[in-house]
Amino acid sequence: MTIAVIGTGKMGSGIAKLLAAKGEKIVIGARDPAKAAALAAEIGGGAEGGGIEAAVKLADVAILAVWYQQLEETVRAAGDLTGKILVDISNPITEDFKGLRIGHTTSAAEELQALAPNATVVKAFNTIFSELLPAEAREGRDPVQAFVAADDEAAKRKVSDIAAKGGFQPVDAGPLANARYIEPLGEMTIWFAFFLGWGPTAAPAWVKS
Amino acid sequence: MTIAVIGTGKMGSGIAKLLAAKGEKIVIGARDPAKAAALAAEIGGGAEGGGIEAAVKLADVAILAVWYQQLEETVRAAGDLTGKILVDISNPITEDFKGLRIGHTTSAAEELQALAPNATVVKAFNTIFSELLPAEAREGRDPVQAFVAADDEAAKRKVSDIAAKGGFQPVDAGPLANARYIEPLGEMTIWFAFFLGWGPTAAPAWVKS
Repeated sequence: MTIAVIGTGKMGSGIAKLLAAKGEKIVIGARDPAKAAALAAEIGGGAEGGGIEAAVKLADVAILAVWYQQLEETVRAAGDLTGKILVDISNPITEDFKGLRIGHTTSAAEELQALAPNATVVKAFNTIFSELLPAEAREGRDPVQAFVAADDEAAKRKVSDIAAKGGFQPVDAGPLANARYIEPLGEMTIWFAFFLGWGPTAAPAWVKS
Repeated sequence: MTIAVIGTGKMGSGIAKLLAAKGEKIVIGARDPAKAAALAAEIGGGAEGGGIEAAVKLADVAILAVWYQQLEETVRAAGDLTGKILVDISNPITEDFKGLRIGHTTSAAEELQALAPNATVVKAFNTIFSELLPAEAREGRDPVQAFVAADDEAAKRKVSDIAAKGGFQPVDAGPLANARYIEPLGEMTIWFAFFLGWGPTAAPAWVKS
C-alpha cells in the first residue's frame, strides 16, 4: 500500500516522517512539487514527492494535510479520485482559532465528501497536534487516541491500521457524519492547548472503568 | 452553601446522593414536590425536598438535572433567579440520541442563559453518565474530568469546587459559549457508550505529557 500525504506543512511533514519511519511507502504531493520533492528527499527511505495529482495517482490512501479552506482547491488539483480513500484531518476553525466556521448540520469531512463524491472520505487525526506526531513525543504516556469516522468499514479499517502503525490507538468514532462532533472535539483541544494553558501535547481520550 | 438539585431522575438523584454523602446541604426540587420530598427522605442527612421555586429560593447554586426540553418550563417554575447560579448539565439530543437538536451558533447552555438573564449559567457534568455518579463506581480509575464552562469566574470556581467535592477533576473549559463544543463532546460520549460498544462508564478526558 502506498500512502499519499498532501501538504508539506507541520502536519503533512510530521505524518509523512512518522509513517516512513514505520516502513510505509510514502508519496508526498504539494501545489509546489519542488517542496514535495525536497521533503521526500529529507525523509529518504524511498519516499517520493511531486505534484498533487501525481501523488494521489500512486496511492490508495491520500491524507489531506491541508487547511480546511484549501480542501476544495486540493480536490480540484487531485484529478480522478475514483476509488481513493481521502483522509480529512482538518478542523474548520475561524481565523482566531476560537470557533468553527461550520458545524451542527454539516462538517468539513462531509463537505469534502460532497466535493469528491467518487472518493471515500475518512475523518481522522484532527485532534492530534503536530507536536504529538513524532513517536518520541509520545513516549511514556498512554497511547494517544485517533478518532476515525467513516461510512465505509473497509476504508475505516485501512485508516485505523495506518493510525496504529503510527503508534496511535485508533478509536472507531462511527459514521462520517460524526465529524459534526469530532470537529468540535478538535476545536476544544485547540482551546485547551492554546487558550487554557495545557500546551500542544494536550489530546482527548475516552476512558472507561 | 446550599445546593439545589432540580429533578429526581437518574442524574438528579445521583448528584443529590453524591453531594449529600460528601456533607453538602442539599434541597431537592421537582414539579411533583412529593417526589422531591421522598428523595430527600431517602437521602437523609438534612436534605429537604419540595417544589422547584422553594428549592431554588433556599440555594445559591441550582443544578438543573432535567432534559434539555424541560429547561424552559423549569426556569418558568423557578421564580426569581436573580443572582442564582444555574448549572446546565443537559445535552440537547435528538429523540434517537444520535444527534443534537441545536449547535454551532448556539448551545443549550446559552439558550438557558437567555431564558434566565438574571442568573449566571454554568455548563458542567454533561459528559458524565449517571452510572459514574456514585463514588464507588469511580474507584480505581483516574479521576473523571468534569468540564466547566462559564463567563463568570466566581461562578465557575463555585461549580468547580462542587465537582471536586464529588470526586471529579474539574477542568476549566473556558467561556459559556464553549458549550458549543462541550455539548458535541457529550453527544460523542453517548455515541461511544451506547452505539459503539463502550458502555456507560465511558467518559472523555484531556491528557498531556
